[in-house]
Amino acid sequence: MSVFAPRDPSYAARVRDSFARQGIMGLIGARLTRIEPGLVEIAVPYRKDLSQQHGFFHAGVTGTIADSAGGYAAYTLFPEDSSVLTTEYKINLLAPADGRMLRALGRVVRSGRTLSVCEVDVFVERDDGTERLCARMLQTLITLHGRADDRTGRAG
Amino acid sequence: MSVFAPRDPSYAARVRDSFARQGIMGLIGARLTRIEPGLVEIAVPYRKDLSQQHGFFHAGVTGTIADSAGGYAAYTLFPEDSSVLTTEYKINLLAPADGRMLRALGRVVRSGRTLSVCEVDVFVERDDGTERLCARMLQTLITLHGRADDRTGRAG
Amino acid sequence: MSVFAPRDPSYAARVRDSFARQGIMGLIGARLTRIEPGLVEIAVPYRKDLSQQHGFFHAGVTGTIADSAGGYAAYTLFPEDSSVLTTEYKINLLAPADGRMLRALGRVVRSGRTLSVCEVDVFVERDDGTERLCARMLQTLITLHGRADDRTGRAG
Amino acid sequence: MSVFAPRDPSYAARVRDSFARQGIMGLIGARLTRIEPGLVEIAVPYRKDLSQQHGFFHAGVTGTIADSAGGYAAYTLFPEDSSVLTTEYKINLLAPADGRMLRALGRVVRSGRTLSVCEVDVFVERDDGTERLCARMLQTLITLHGRADDRTGRAG
Repeated sequence: MSVFAPRDPSYAARVRDSFARQGIMGLIGARLTRIEPGLVEIAVPYRKDLSQQHGFFHAGVTGTIADSAGGYAAYTLFPEDSSVLTTEYKINLLAPADGRMLRALGRVVRSGRTLSVCEVDVFVERDDGTERLCARMLQTLITLHGRADDRTGRAG
Repeated sequence: MSVFAPRDPSYAARVRDSFARQGIMGLIGARLTRIEPGLVEIAVPYRKDLSQQHGFFHAGVTGTIADSAGGYAAYTLFPEDSSVLTTEYKINLLAPADGRMLRALGRVVRSGRTLSVCEVDVFVERDDGTERLCARMLQTLITLHGRADDRTGRAG
Repeated sequence: MSVFAPRDPSYAARVRDSFARQGIMGLIGARLTRIEPGLVEIAVPYRKDLSQQHGFFHAGVTGTIADSAGGYAAYTLFPEDSSVLTTEYKINLLAPADGRMLRALGRVVRSGRTLSVCEVDVFVERDDGTERLCARMLQTLITLHGRADDRTGRAG
Repeated sequence: MSVFAPRDPSYAARVRDSFARQGIMGLIGARLTRIEPGLVEIAVPYRKDLSQQHGFFHAGVTGTIADSAGGYAAYTLFPEDSSVLTTEYKINLLAPADGRMLRALGRVVRSGRTLSVCEVDVFVERDDGTERLCARMLQTLITLHGRADDRTGRAG
């Protein structure tokens, strides 16, 4: 992994503002736990209403926090007047997400002018406190230049 | 697409029961709208707390209902005493999920003894009533034989 | 699938020229068998030196012709003064590629100014003449504007 | 990454034998350059007949050696009387494969009884001798138990 230099010194505030506008993060109880150049971590504690049919975290929750962790990891390296959208991602579910906490660690693999590629590891904290890699995501993001994140999007 | 014959005549009830145990579906307000052999559809009306930072449906919601639609499409063709888990999926976000309803239509591409492959189209119903393809998923599922769906999983 | 209108009437000649510059296509004996707006087909007859360890077509050959079929399907809809590069693809191998001919049919799902998404089906023609879907690819392509295909690239 | 213990002490010979039966590896001039428990590397020198339309290595060559590097990395950990097949893979092309040598380094992420997941990095050695990450693959493999690799497959 390279070391990345952010182009906008206020990258962390920019990520926090955008995260706060993601309604879904409030709904599922997710929190931003790390913001560094090229790296963002999001965690969510277990609740029964986040489950799939066997009571584990639903793959959709895993995918949701992984997608945001990767997207914001890329976004830390974007210029100020820009916005980020996910183009596509692929996720391998490596082990059941059976535990009390889910943690997605997104890291930039390549940061280009138009496209960025991130990798995200998702860990589940078991009831006994040990952690286990439960998913890996490989993701492509696109930079929307000249469209600040809080001026893009749906009215209301 | 082939025509598929279910091995378990009670496949629809089995899908409905399993869906009802997915806590996340209640949380986001998703509904099962079609169950046929090799095909399942799930829809979710827009709410602000399902949004990403621009107010559109979050890709995680798209991924969540697409993953369940594909998983249950595969599950309609499984034997009675079995369970389904997602191995991996890849999703392309083709257009912003900007509208009042999201609808994921999952279809089986290949149904094998151990592995199944599904394709899922996600449509967004715009505010003017028109529909638009906003995502496509390609997904791999695994059959857990001899483990009925309601006897697998997390205690409590 | 939508019906697509090419922006450059000489799209087929442009695809043929580019294909002829792909050294790998000559090496493996691949032929362009269909070129239509938003659709390209490539076929390759079986040879022992295209095999994996069990004597079937190697997944790399499947991936190679599928990648070019999808890439050129997208390219049929590009403007004249442009070039195409694959950003990423995902391929599911649905059945052993065991037969005398492999045929990749690439189709555009979405054609955007910067990014295109294609889906490719690969069929294997068995020794008894029947055909079978053996792979499906979902692929993202990028348009390089202002860089004609024959003026991009490696010297020599 | 975990450290992996092979179940079959003759894993390296098993990989070499299987590789030698992959006709495509001879055709493109690929060589096995590392075999360790859970890790395999394959390299291929540049030739004009491995190129895409701009003269770089074709993504299909990148995909071919990456697929085999990941598949054999998984296979080092399989029991003696087994065979390996790729279920699916996803590859991101991060930079043009423009150089004199391509090197795919496959590593096991998860080794399960039925399914394994590998990650493969592909590096291109530029003409000036420097190396650059040009692709990353995330791949799912399946173990065929009770079917030794040299007794599976196509007659003749």
